[in-house]
Amino acid sequence: MSETVPAAPTYADIALAAERIEPFVHRTRVVSNWSLNERVGCEVFLKCEHEQRTGSFKIRGAINNLLQLSEVERARGVVAHSSGNHAQAVALAAKVLGMHATIVMPHNANAIKKAATEGYGARVVSCADTDGARVETADRIVAETGGTLIHPNASPRTIAGAGTAALELLEDVPSLDALIAPVGGGGLSCGAALACAGWTDAPVFVGAEPAGADDAARSMETGVHVVEQTPSTIADGLRTCLGPLNFQILSEHGVRVVTVSEAEIVDAMRFVWQRAKLPIEPSSAVAVAALLGDKWDLDARRIGVILSGGNVDTSAYFDGLLA
Amino acid sequence: MSETVPAAPTYADIALAAERIEPFVHRTRVVSNWSLNERVGCEVFLKCEHEQRTGSFKIRGAINNLLQLSEVERARGVVAHSSGNHAQAVALAAKVLGMHATIVMPHNANAIKKAATEGYGARVVSCADTDGARVETADRIVAETGGTLIHPNASPRTIAGAGTAALELLEDVPSLDALIAPVGGGGLSCGAALACAGWTDAPVFVGAEPAGADDAARSMETGVHVVEQTPSTIADGLRTCLGPLNFQILSEHGVRVVTVSEAEIVDAMRFVWQRAKLPIEPSSAVAVAALLGDKWDLDARRIGVILSGGNVDTSAYFDGLLA
Repeated sequence: MSETVPAAPTYADIALAAERIEPFVHRTRVVSNWSLNERVGCEVFLKCEHEQRTGSFKIRGAINNLLQLSEVERARGVVAHSSGNHAQAVALAAKVLGMHATIVMPHNANAIKKAATEGYGARVVSCADTDGARVETADRIVAETGGTLIHPNASPRTIAGAGTAALELLEDVPSLDALIAPVGGGGLSCGAALACAGWTDAPVFVGAEPAGADDAARSMETGVHVVEQTPSTIADGLRTCLGPLNFQILSEHGVRVVTVSEAEIVDAMRFVWQRAKLPIEPSSAVAVAALLGDKWDLDARRIGVILSGGNVDTSAYFDGLLA
Repeated sequence: MSETVPAAPTYADIALAAERIEPFVHRTRVVSNWSLNERVGCEVFLKCEHEQRTGSFKIRGAINNLLQLSEVERARGVVAHSSGNHAQAVALAAKVLGMHATIVMPHNANAIKKAATEGYGARVVSCADTDGARVETADRIVAETGGTLIHPNASPRTIAGAGTAALELLEDVPSLDALIAPVGGGGLSCGAALACAGWTDAPVFVGAEPAGADDAARSMETGVHVVEQTPSTIADGLRTCLGPLNFQILSEHGVRVVTVSEAEIVDAMRFVWQRAKLPIEPSSAVAVAALLGDKWDLDARRIGVILSGGNVDTSAYFDGLLA
């Protein structure tokens, strides 16, 4: 397998990515909340990537990829497949940098996310709602257009870009003991693990995953890369399995991945909305749930949490207000 | 009537209140949003009082009142009647300043708000769900305990305290042409009108009200103080009529009050949640709705908006996530 897996990015790659993407992304704020600190029993620092451009950290990896394309590649445009945050991120990154983007989305993708992606000027191509159909459709478009496929989590440039969120948090909050982020395909978690490992006082990185999509937890526990699962979780951003490079990086860093139940995810989301007034999406709440549920026996007093995104469909709620 | 109406606070009272309450309240941030600016066609600056302590601007007036009580008054404690944000504000203010608080709430008040009020250490007394019952019950407790009644909008100290939110916005965003805030009982709107009138380049102040609780709009239009209405609006913070002093101040400053429909309120709330990721309550959305609906013919390029609060009951939404 090693021949098909690219080299892992380094801490230096993350630092370079941070410089590279800085003009194009928000340096999101870090929020503390008294009620949360009380409940968890230590100081918690929430990195607000749900307030990032396009509403998630994904723009970091997208921009970091697109800025490193050659003139020829830029002219041919980019291709991505995603039903969610990566779609919007690649669409906006392409718009900002003056490139064409084609996004493959399942035909039943959320109408709001599809509209947002088109709103950024991307061409949206529908496909069947299977992983196979997405990959095939994207590969066909790449073959037809010569465009570059921007992977949502398994490419070194995507990982380095995602890691800049963790790097900013480490820079802005001194002396963190630990940092926690949700684990889906592994872009954010690998970036954060690498940033922590390279940081002066090397805080521990812990991943958090829904019990209903626990491929990474099982992979870390057994040392065998789980590549298939039937996810059952409202955390729609975390329904994918770790990519090969992502599994390798998390393994090399001995990353622990804790799991939380659906009830714990909703409880955490409710708590953060109502107390801290931060409307995060379920995937972000997974990391908070790991803290609230006291899922580790770490002696950490200062903990950073990456709130990965805030793209949640509240249409039913708002429609209900007028009913 | 003039004999029962206290003297209006001045701009200087607001400036003094700002100094007085500064150690006890957050200086909330001001947020801009590209999508909102695009849609409105000018620069909009959102003052995030939904991120204020207790989740609304009400803590400003409560603290400003309590800090000016005598030793004897402090020992006797404070009394308030409210089903919402004022209850939590007085409860927290009393807790912070080491005083007793008794809050009269209708028996059918929102369980979350009741729990929050009790969570701040206040004694909650239930009464029937009528204005008369609230006032009677509060008056009885004042008579029994010698406590001081803290009025939610009609007292000069409450108005001056609320005005500090507008003052901070004027200080933080230079050269505003206009400022807009929701109108309920008139505490915030009077404070904002006075702050604007006293500010260097005197931006225009405009009030926004639900069409389903339009007492202030009618009062301003006819010059006759409307003191009764049967409110029908989801903006639960704006269901009250202007107090006498509030009517007088808004009249003297020739304040225009524009109205918005329920559909416009929900549309504005949805837009601010989804695009700016700010979970505001319907009362806050009323001010944004006035902007989105282009309800005035003002030539304003830079407009400040006070997002008054964020205490919205999303229980049904979160419960639905697990169903």
